[in-house]
Amino acid sequence: MKQIAILGPGLLGGSIALALRERGGAHVRVWGRRAAAVEEVRAAGCADVASTEIASVVGGADVVILATPVGVLPELAREVVRHASPSALVTDVGSVKAPVAAALTPIFEGRARFIGSHPMAGSERTGLAAARADLFSGAVCLVTPTKETPAETIDDATALWEGLGGVVHVLSPVAHDAAVAWISHLPHLLAATLVNTVVARDPAALALCGPGFRDTTRVAAGPPPMWTEILAENHGAVRVALEALIEKLNALATLLDRPPGERDPLMHDFLTQAKAARDRLRIPAARHHV
Amino acid sequence: MKQIAILGPGLLGGSIALALRERGGAHVRVWGRRAAAVEEVRAAGCADVASTEIASVVGGADVVILATPVGVLPELAREVVRHASPSALVTDVGSVKAPVAAALTPIFEGRARFIGSHPMAGSERTGLAAARADLFSGAVCLVTPTKETPAETIDDATALWEGLGGVVHVLSPVAHDAAVAWISHLPHLLAATLVNTVVARDPAALALCGPGFRDTTRVAAGPPPMWTEILAENHGAVRVALEALIEKLNALATLLDRPPGERDPLMHDFLTQAKAARDRLRIPAARHHV
Repeated sequence: MKQIAILGPGLLGGSIALALRERGGAHVRVWGRRAAAVEEVRAAGCADVASTEIASVVGGADVVILATPVGVLPELAREVVRHASPSALVTDVGSVKAPVAAALTPIFEGRARFIGSHPMAGSERTGLAAARADLFSGAVCLVTPTKETPAETIDDATALWEGLGGVVHVLSPVAHDAAVAWISHLPHLLAATLVNTVVARDPAALALCGPGFRDTTRVAAGPPPMWTEILAENHGAVRVALEALIEKLNALATLLDRPPGERDPLMHDFLTQAKAARDRLRIPAARHHV
Repeated sequence: MKQIAILGPGLLGGSIALALRERGGAHVRVWGRRAAAVEEVRAAGCADVASTEIASVVGGADVVILATPVGVLPELAREVVRHASPSALVTDVGSVKAPVAAALTPIFEGRARFIGSHPMAGSERTGLAAARADLFSGAVCLVTPTKETPAETIDDATALWEGLGGVVHVLSPVAHDAAVAWISHLPHLLAATLVNTVVARDPAALALCGPGFRDTTRVAAGPPPMWTEILAENHGAVRVALEALIEKLNALATLLDRPPGERDPLMHDFLTQAKAARDRLRIPAARHHV
């Protein structure tokens, strides 16, 4: 039976544990920094072993999944590597990948088989209470090898996420960070900015909102410390994406002022292009909403 | 038994019909312009009478609900007023209210009791197939009297939407259009712009999207003709909202380039403010998603 260690019982770590338990065939060990978090894991019954001691969770594990905030990964990795088997597959679930690869690759080099991962299955909710066994079902899971990562390590990480129900795409850490700047980090900034723009203008208007505003701004309810960290780590790529978006918005502002005969056909084209692309998206429906 | 006429069996008109049928106590008549639409209404069993003839649907009705696109309302109203009872409550469900009030108030003056409405319960989906009896359950429904609207007419429109499960807010047509520019029309433009920005940069990135991008852009799948019309009718207020948002985005672009020690605390504050406001939103969860 495979020994799988999960470090960090939050939304993602907890969901991985639940998915593994539901699927069966794995011995699931969960590490939490705080005793209270470990107690919560035990109460939820999502692990065979739950402990605050890294050695007992990581020692002898076939797979080690680092599911903590990105900022503590280097410190955690230095502890993990002291106990990990050299044959262990080690991966993380952070939302930025180039800084993580740069920090963790040298730590694990020759001492475990590290490769970055990023399951696109977050939520504005956090913690074990929000975890679900089906969180990765149909979800895009990005696996991010460097040029030096052996094919076998890529295959093993792919099998891990596919086993949890994910749809795997493989790309480099740098390509990952460039892509998510547009499809995840920019949307987050936009959602937060939309909320703050309305609040600055008229907080009472929030009482009048419908489902459109709710969904457009959902991610703005995500944890500020995590998102501050993500935006800091990927600020260069996010800035490029933001500038491109602002340029399009400026063009729209100008368009709104043009005579109807010019404005409306161009606006219709713009909206039609967006609808066509949005209609092609195939993402499983969210399973929980605020 | 109340006679209720619904003109236009689309998402909103169809959902009103279904809700009235489920609730009982009303005789529901539905008008559709096309024979095929009327056949669809009959097949769905959501009306006691379904017809392409306005006279037979509107004649003797206690309530007349105009649920067609905003652009055809004046023409439809001129037809409706020939058959409506002077005591009939007439309302519409359009997403802009000042132009509708300006066009329809003189048509119905002294000949029926007109007041505008706007249930904030749309969807990116359209048509009778997307209609649901619970679409208005817990949904904000805006009722927009002018200074001349009698209190009884406001009360009757309020009772209509509350009877369908809605939470009614009353405001003037101009205040309505100013508010929805920020909470509905601006989010729509943003969602479409976000999609088009990603498409222009790298359409392949759309294959990597997670639930954040899905929800942030959901409304961009809405019908382009309807949204072109809405943005045209409310272009002045939308432009003001768009400029305010662009100003905040420009500030964020500058912030992203500042040293981490300055950037990160300010970014954290910005995200915390947004999360606090978003957490206060109370909107029923959507019942269908792409």
